[in-house]
Amino acid sequence: MFQLTNKPIDVQQVINQVTDRNCGAIATFIGTVREFTNGKKTVRLEYIAYESMAEKMLKRIGAEINERWPGTNVAIVHRLGVLDISEAAVVIAVSSPHRQAAYEANAYAMERIKAMVPIWKKEIWEDGSSWIGDQLETKRYT
Amino acid sequence: MFQLTNKPIDVQQVINQVTDRNCGAIATFIGTVREFTNGKKTVRLEYIAYESMAEKMLKRIGAEINERWPGTNVAIVHRLGVLDISEAAVVIAVSSPHRQAAYEANAYAMERIKAMVPIWKKEIWEDGSSWIGDQLETKRYT
Repeated sequence: MFQLTNKPIDVQQVINQVTDRNCGAIATFIGTVREFTNGKKTVRLEYIAYESMAEKMLKRIGAEINERWPGTNVAIVHRLGVLDISEAAVVIAVSSPHRQAAYEANAYAMERIKAMVPIWKKEIWEDGSSWIGDQLETKRYT
Repeated sequence: MFQLTNKPIDVQQVINQVTDRNCGAIATFIGTVREFTNGKKTVRLEYIAYESMAEKMLKRIGAEINERWPGTNVAIVHRLGVLDISEAAVVIAVSSPHRQAAYEANAYAMERIKAMVPIWKKEIWEDGSSWIGDQLETKRYT
């Protein structure tokens, strides 16, 4: 399950996609809309994507993880459109036979999303707005 | 929310406990019952606890995390009783302003649970059963 959606993300449904009787660990990451960034108040966020390419990139990240951490299952859902404070923008679930791989692969997925998935974020501040490419928020994963 | 329960754990409910408008990251870990361990087939698991002490220790782990990673929120729910394959034995949710602390604190919580919470696991194998202290599965966190 690698998809974009305009509706609120159902976390349990993403987790269900990776549940596997051969796995004893499921690490989940939820990126939520935070109200304050460097003292500036966010009112809401808006995400847009180059959709067909973004879904292709999410699938590629899943494949990279399966190769680096054999025995893992991966699901990634990214929200598009307008989000209020505390809503989930992205949900990543990784299951693995043992927990270390689940944590590591999950953190890797988030770095890769920031680095290579064409999704852009518009921050609507109290006093204006600005477009921010996700990839500007973090170092590129090499 | 630091508790033991005899009922299936509602993951979304645990996540709700740590949702915070000041946080942009929620890392969740679910420990599930795995069918095979070193080629041996598990039929089901049974967890028992020294309950009052176990809940006290879960709270202490939460306090340790808040001290080490300021601005985090922590919830831990551990299942007791008989569990089937793929059921959740433990759910840990940690929210934080930024994601690295959420991942790190979550992994720390799991290490600490294994090291110091008096919960014991009985593995019911295809060909017999054995009691295993959770703390024997891992190194002690120091």
